[in-house]
Amino acid sequence: MLIVMATKATPKMVDEVCSVIESMGLKAHPMPGALRTAIGITGNKSQVDSNIILAQEGVRDIIHVTKPFKLVSREFYPENSIIDVDGVKIGGPEFVVMAGPCSVESREQCMIVAEHVHKAGAKIFRGGAFKPRTSPYSFQGLKEEGLKILAEVRDKFGLKIVTEAVDTETVNLVADYSDIIQIGARNMQNYSLLRKAGQTKKPVLLKRGMSATLEEFLMAAEYIMAEDNPNVILCERGVRTFADHTRNTLDLSAIPFVKRTSHLPIISDPSHGTGVRHKVIPLSRASMAVGADGLIIEVHHDPAKALSDGPQALTPDMFDDLMNQMRSIAKVLDRECG
Amino acid sequence: MLIVMATKATPKMVDEVCSVIESMGLKAHPMPGALRTAIGITGNKSQVDSNIILAQEGVRDIIHVTKPFKLVSREFYPENSIIDVDGVKIGGPEFVVMAGPCSVESREQCMIVAEHVHKAGAKIFRGGAFKPRTSPYSFQGLKEEGLKILAEVRDKFGLKIVTEAVDTETVNLVADYSDIIQIGARNMQNYSLLRKAGQTKKPVLLKRGMSATLEEFLMAAEYIMAEDNPNVILCERGVRTFADHTRNTLDLSAIPFVKRTSHLPIISDPSHGTGVRHKVIPLSRASMAVGADGLIIEVHHDPAKALSDGPQALTPDMFDDLMNQMRSIAKVLDRECG
Amino acid sequence: MLIVMATKATPKMVDEVCSVIESMGLKAHPMPGALRTAIGITGNKSQVDSNIILAQEGVRDIIHVTKPFKLVSREFYPENSIIDVDGVKIGGPEFVVMAGPCSVESREQCMIVAEHVHKAGAKIFRGGAFKPRTSPYSFQGLKEEGLKILAEVRDKFGLKIVTEAVDTETVNLVADYSDIIQIGARNMQNYSLLRKAGQTKKPVLLKRGMSATLEEFLMAAEYIMAEDNPNVILCERGVRTFADHTRNTLDLSAIPFVKRTSHLPIISDPSHGTGVRHKVIPLSRASMAVGADGLIIEVHHDPAKALSDGPQALTPDMFDDLMNQMRSIAKVLDRECG
Amino acid sequence: MLIVMATKATPKMVDEVCSVIESMGLKAHPMPGALRTAIGITGNKSQVDSNIILAQEGVRDIIHVTKPFKLVSREFYPENSIIDVDGVKIGGPEFVVMAGPCSVESREQCMIVAEHVHKAGAKIFRGGAFKPRTSPYSFQGLKEEGLKILAEVRDKFGLKIVTEAVDTETVNLVADYSDIIQIGARNMQNYSLLRKAGQTKKPVLLKRGMSATLEEFLMAAEYIMAEDNPNVILCERGVRTFADHTRNTLDLSAIPFVKRTSHLPIISDPSHGTGVRHKVIPLSRASMAVGADGLIIEVHHDPAKALSDGPQALTPDMFDDLMNQMRSIAKVLDRECG
Repeated sequence: MLIVMATKATPKMVDEVCSVIESMGLKAHPMPGALRTAIGITGNKSQVDSNIILAQEGVRDIIHVTKPFKLVSREFYPENSIIDVDGVKIGGPEFVVMAGPCSVESREQCMIVAEHVHKAGAKIFRGGAFKPRTSPYSFQGLKEEGLKILAEVRDKFGLKIVTEAVDTETVNLVADYSDIIQIGARNMQNYSLLRKAGQTKKPVLLKRGMSATLEEFLMAAEYIMAEDNPNVILCERGVRTFADHTRNTLDLSAIPFVKRTSHLPIISDPSHGTGVRHKVIPLSRASMAVGADGLIIEVHHDPAKALSDGPQALTPDMFDDLMNQMRSIAKVLDRECG
Repeated sequence: MLIVMATKATPKMVDEVCSVIESMGLKAHPMPGALRTAIGITGNKSQVDSNIILAQEGVRDIIHVTKPFKLVSREFYPENSIIDVDGVKIGGPEFVVMAGPCSVESREQCMIVAEHVHKAGAKIFRGGAFKPRTSPYSFQGLKEEGLKILAEVRDKFGLKIVTEAVDTETVNLVADYSDIIQIGARNMQNYSLLRKAGQTKKPVLLKRGMSATLEEFLMAAEYIMAEDNPNVILCERGVRTFADHTRNTLDLSAIPFVKRTSHLPIISDPSHGTGVRHKVIPLSRASMAVGADGLIIEVHHDPAKALSDGPQALTPDMFDDLMNQMRSIAKVLDRECG
Repeated sequence: MLIVMATKATPKMVDEVCSVIESMGLKAHPMPGALRTAIGITGNKSQVDSNIILAQEGVRDIIHVTKPFKLVSREFYPENSIIDVDGVKIGGPEFVVMAGPCSVESREQCMIVAEHVHKAGAKIFRGGAFKPRTSPYSFQGLKEEGLKILAEVRDKFGLKIVTEAVDTETVNLVADYSDIIQIGARNMQNYSLLRKAGQTKKPVLLKRGMSATLEEFLMAAEYIMAEDNPNVILCERGVRTFADHTRNTLDLSAIPFVKRTSHLPIISDPSHGTGVRHKVIPLSRASMAVGADGLIIEVHHDPAKALSDGPQALTPDMFDDLMNQMRSIAKVLDRECG
Repeated sequence: MLIVMATKATPKMVDEVCSVIESMGLKAHPMPGALRTAIGITGNKSQVDSNIILAQEGVRDIIHVTKPFKLVSREFYPENSIIDVDGVKIGGPEFVVMAGPCSVESREQCMIVAEHVHKAGAKIFRGGAFKPRTSPYSFQGLKEEGLKILAEVRDKFGLKIVTEAVDTETVNLVADYSDIIQIGARNMQNYSLLRKAGQTKKPVLLKRGMSATLEEFLMAAEYIMAEDNPNVILCERGVRTFADHTRNTLDLSAIPFVKRTSHLPIISDPSHGTGVRHKVIPLSRASMAVGADGLIIEVHHDPAKALSDGPQALTPDMFDDLMNQMRSIAKVLDRECG
């Protein structure tokens, strides 16, 4: 349920409506917008007495949110959410590119790649310190040592850091070192992890599960937001289908759907979405054209020697080419890039 | 198997190589390119004696095509094929938009829609006269009466006509009235129909089957080309997956794959690919950005009253908007549009 | 719409109701059952005046069939349809096994395999004379020569013959030589072929398309029945999914769904459904246990040399083992087998 | 890598081989079989010097396991693993039925259902105390209170308890109260949870993820076994496909594949696999027939009032019917049931 306050409602009126809601055993989520404040209500299992609320000063309307999503819903919060990652704004006019290696392999590797992607216009550096691997015997990441290297990258280049948290035990450690906590596709419905990531109040990059419907995807975001963390960035990274010409099937129709249904920003991951280097640039162009708010791209200075996912990493030269193409398309779409 | 002739090889040398091949019980397909001629060989079940061929004058090289596709393969014919539809060229620098109603419903309806899409920049008019319907009791199209209406549209507006042929009995009738014969997704592996459509020598628009792999898709095109009809235009129209936010999942990664593997042009059908009007424009932008050679779009002047597929038809106003967006993106991608 | 006649209604009453229906521009399909006759009505695009019909003598009830299927629907015809294939009854207590090679390769091959499967208890012999192949260059079957070999198998062993028709041009030829016309998965929505197969009045074995929903599958059967051919046998043969441990994913849940929704018999094809020999026997057991009315199984006396689908063919010894297992399970499921 | 000891090798010889392996920095997993002992080696990133091992007394052979799975592999341990759940043996001749409500809702509900399923022949009681729910606002289970109710069921009826652990924080609590820890489909690749569940040394019931390949499924089991916990029971519970007649598509072909590839037992969950009550019994019969080692079935005494998954729960009467059918099929398959 969503309360729409009048444009002229004062902060005091908003506070009072919140008190009334909480006195009914519910939770109030005030969301100030440019024109007016909306107040989301959660925790209502049964019918809420709307009359009491409508009787409050400054209340204009009550909207019954029939879809299962509340906090993530555009009905709940009609304007685009812009997530501020320490100055880099995701969801606004800027088309933000995150780039870096699949895994943090060494200090040297990260510095080479970071210098390059920074110069080319990336704003956020990606790199896995904790790697969820199909086999227990595969390289599982440099862990805290990797996080420290990422922090060095930030210090040296001013790039913001996004890196994956794979369990509740280490999510706070990841939050300490990074600017955005990534939740991977395999953990999209690991609800304890979603809650803990939400509790850190850090921006969270939530990847769509391999066979998640968009309702399930948005409900996973709802778990994070229900911890009073509005800083969620969604990410389409391809789904599993019968198709065998690509590692996953990048579902770009998810992007206009999410944009209509939710106020949250959504980016695209053509590296995992295709699994093959030569498809990354065309699908990056398509991601921007379809309306995504950014990209997350794997780049490696020596892909043949990458410890994981080498075949999908762009070389630094290819990444330059990508950024140039992005900039020229951004112009005709009224966006800025890099 | 593919024979590459030297750049300086004369037409006479090419003819002689063809004769040698045919004398071996095989079929030769000479494909003249800008620089040199290649000769495809089909019909070889077992090993061909390459030495005889290499001994011919003007032969530079023999390439063993290991993939199952031959005539459709880019190895076979390295340059982009450009299909000339009575002056409208598909597969070259122009990004070609085909537009019109799902079904031909009446003369009046077609004239209204055709006038509009023609003015907006479409070059080809679409409309179904024979409709393959899931139910035997649904509207199956106006048949020959519909074809006549389409021919009138061509006469009046100079638009070229694309319309579907649903069986071998009526494919020649469709060929008589239209400029491009469409083979629908359900018939992608209707091999008798593919052969007959090939024999008409008319351009054929071949849609990908609902769960066809790209190898199967290209092999279906091979059936048409094996009838000595090089005029095949491929079309990605969405595949079937678990996803329930869209009617089909438009697989844009198919487009760079086809471009790498084959010399044939490929267009995109975001109307069937999504099934919902508001996703058509974003996915049209994405289709152009990913590298498609054109679009096929459903437009209806009164979608609420359409006899089929109303929810996915654009209104004329939306189509204008689409064309404007296409033109501005085309500029930065070195293409022309409308 | 379905008219239920009273149990005591005379044939004359049934005839009169049919006349009334036809005078309204509709088509009447009388379906005599053990207890009472039902009359299906098709051709009604708009509302039918039920009062006129209810006023006829002998009419007990009118059922409005809301689902898109009519003739195939169990609401339409509540008892199990039993298809009589020249004495072999499919859909009744007998669990019928069809067996034979993928392709008819030679007279000798067919005689060896037929002798074996006949002795083991198969009632129907399968073998492709027309083969729909992904590549135009693959072996396409022995065509009429293959049909003649199949007819010889019938004469010699008394086995009934099922073989595939791939196009409208050859469906009558196939009907002349065979007892059951098979429509393959690729042609499930080749509506012209469905209609022509229906017109032969021969039993038709209709295979589910690779990504057909069950509604589409039953609607394809509706096309055959709409030609006044009630002799349709359905076949689950596996669908396309992301799973890579099997060629297709045999969807056994389709069988109880079809049994509830339709009166038509349904068999299972574990050979195509799995694509690997060692899974055929376990999934044959499961098919019987889930409620299928029979099996269609590929058997080859020398699978390594088969011209098509060798890896999924059972050897004669494995087929004996299969039949023994089927017989022992049939006992506890109140069915007979072989 | 796998060391096969000679049949006459003494326990002392086995111990010495293990010491040698560990001195090389690797981990040895002795697996005593009826005829001979095998020793699995894990931890080998690079080449191991086989000569040192072959030189040990009692060593017969070394098998290089090329597939990514080691401990779960049938090459590694050729006999069927039989998991002993406090006297109930899973993976041997007995076909074990686990039954109970989706969620533990109250003491009274559990006692009613438990009494019934116990009398009908179930050996293990299922019921969720921690429920992973798509929405953060849905009922999430009675938690420890629910576990206490389950423990009471064990005390009163002698049924063993299987219940789901949803995170690393509560897995030990679940282990304290239950006999089998269930890992749900959403958590199949929650590797930290898999490891922690492994460390409890309790039997673990691992459900296949919604779009997991069988390689990923077995590799998830490998995570549990790599913690020196051989007590893994696999469970097929349906995968996600385009099919819309069923909640999931129960992939029964997974069962013979797992049986060939792994020594671990595998059961089937037709309740989640179909999502509809009337398909549960036919697919239970099919699961037994295809070779599963047991079932997990949802039963509720008043499904209309169930807090979760009511439509798929069997009534007690239907469960009796199921058990009777299972017993009669078990007889002809040389298995025992209930």
